[in-house]
Amino acid sequence: MKPKIQDVAKVAGVSPTTVSRVLNDRGYISSKTKEKVFAAMEEINYVPNDLARSLYNKRSYLIGVIVPSTSHPFFGELVAHIEKICNEKGYKVLLCNSLHEADKEKKYWEMLHRNQVDGVIVVTYNRGLVDKQQQFPAVAIDHYLSENIPVVSSDNFQGGEIASKELLEAGCRKIIHINGDANLETPANNRQYAYEKVMQEAGRTPETYHVPDVAFLESNIDIIKQLFRDHPDVDGIFASDDLLAIRTLQYAESLGYRVPDDLKIIGYDGTNLIRSLYPNLTTIIQPTYQIAAYAVNTLLQEIDGELLAVKEKTLPVSIWLGKTTGHAS
Amino acid sequence: MKPKIQDVAKVAGVSPTTVSRVLNDRGYISSKTKEKVFAAMEEINYVPNDLARSLYNKRSYLIGVIVPSTSHPFFGELVAHIEKICNEKGYKVLLCNSLHEADKEKKYWEMLHRNQVDGVIVVTYNRGLVDKQQQFPAVAIDHYLSENIPVVSSDNFQGGEIASKELLEAGCRKIIHINGDANLETPANNRQYAYEKVMQEAGRTPETYHVPDVAFLESNIDIIKQLFRDHPDVDGIFASDDLLAIRTLQYAESLGYRVPDDLKIIGYDGTNLIRSLYPNLTTIIQPTYQIAAYAVNTLLQEIDGELLAVKEKTLPVSIWLGKTTGHAS
Repeated sequence: MKPKIQDVAKVAGVSPTTVSRVLNDRGYISSKTKEKVFAAMEEINYVPNDLARSLYNKRSYLIGVIVPSTSHPFFGELVAHIEKICNEKGYKVLLCNSLHEADKEKKYWEMLHRNQVDGVIVVTYNRGLVDKQQQFPAVAIDHYLSENIPVVSSDNFQGGEIASKELLEAGCRKIIHINGDANLETPANNRQYAYEKVMQEAGRTPETYHVPDVAFLESNIDIIKQLFRDHPDVDGIFASDDLLAIRTLQYAESLGYRVPDDLKIIGYDGTNLIRSLYPNLTTIIQPTYQIAAYAVNTLLQEIDGELLAVKEKTLPVSIWLGKTTGHAS
Repeated sequence: MKPKIQDVAKVAGVSPTTVSRVLNDRGYISSKTKEKVFAAMEEINYVPNDLARSLYNKRSYLIGVIVPSTSHPFFGELVAHIEKICNEKGYKVLLCNSLHEADKEKKYWEMLHRNQVDGVIVVTYNRGLVDKQQQFPAVAIDHYLSENIPVVSSDNFQGGEIASKELLEAGCRKIIHINGDANLETPANNRQYAYEKVMQEAGRTPETYHVPDVAFLESNIDIIKQLFRDHPDVDGIFASDDLLAIRTLQYAESLGYRVPDDLKIIGYDGTNLIRSLYPNLTTIIQPTYQIAAYAVNTLLQEIDGELLAVKEKTLPVSIWLGKTTGHAS
């Protein structure tokens, strides 16, 4: 027989209500009583039931996390950080991979509400997920969902500026930008705005190619091919995703371009995995851990009913100097 | 006010018990009644409460998944598949990244029991996680946990055989194997046994270097360096992980080896990500999707109380011919 709360109470010589209070950290309980209860739990090997605890507390201690897919290095790393931080704070992660499908995101969003998670961290690039009036603890990463929902992202404008200036300073004359779907309202668009600003200030004409989906490689190669057909004289490419940058580099090399001599390339994200596998790729590093930590902490504040001072948080990025822009690493 | 089951009953003109039966698909209900109930739900915008449903069904519809880390491409892809398949079957995934730490695995395992998930899929490489007597729906991937727990893995012996023969047939004379921690009881050890068998049959002396952890790159470079110091004449390397293979390739090139002319390398896992980023790397492809599907389906059978015919399932692997073993791709 699995020991129950009543058994703990009997051994500790207190009421079941007192045991329950100790378990849930409610009401005043003397430290002496607490010790008796914990000793009794240990003695009879009592394991508290989280489901029972969650019903009492009206908390599930579950956080829903919606990302496109953990198979993408950036999201795989982001989710690993989020899960680790949640775990340290006593929360579990319910993982949802939306595969960038608006329908799936919507279904997950509703499912997470029904399932009574305490809150949701969502990385989404589709519109219309959230009813503007909706009041539910949530944090968005990289995308505005509604006025009520705080958003955290890295400084995409700064990243775009650093990347574009790196190519300018490396002596590139024809610098082209590759970004994701132009129809998405994401702070990642700021990478493009920064690129355009830097180009205009340098007296250049900015030109951006949009791939269907930065995260999924196969669909992007046609746009990359188009870029080289349109601009065989391209000598600098700023890609808004490392996988995209590597794919572009491979295609360019298959055409006979030498990187960095003929063509300089800079990517974006700078995950540990990509920096390990492709240390030569110059890229903008997103502070993945800090994004995860800020998202989790903000969500827990919301869950605790605290008023948030900041509704939008932007974290600084940095540059990883590989060799693809001509720097010696 | 959120509509309740009683409101649905009133609008449909049936009893709340009938609504509950429709929701939980229990007992005989005429299709006419079902239609009335669904129409009523739609009319008043009733959202069924999964937590209430789970208490009624004694199911949480949650599956715990313990992996080292979603930041590793193989596990990121495996978890993405598991989550997708679970979602299609009405189950949610509680994600736990153990980071290969035995303590963390144990804590997660206990937490998942407490939290009353319906079952657990676990990828673990540490001993002693499971009490032999424990009866709890679980499936292990790549590792024996106890007699009661079914294990699914890809055919590691076959993979080791294919990889070793590929290097032999490519004309390598000194073929060395790099694998993970020799102290772990994992079916992945069969890759090494197959390598040893192929070498012995060819009259060669097998030699294996063990890195501390195949999944974490930084700790492995010292062993790779040692290998090249001990055997500067190495001309074939079979690495039991693609990240390890790529790291070895990079280090070899930094020493001046040309791949595949001086040194042939074959990796393991063959995720979509790595095949996209490093199409030139010859590697053994694990059937990640099939592993995920088999694990989920087996777990759901256990949850439904079905007797399992097969306790150990081995799925076939295949080879991806890149250029690092001298094949033209």
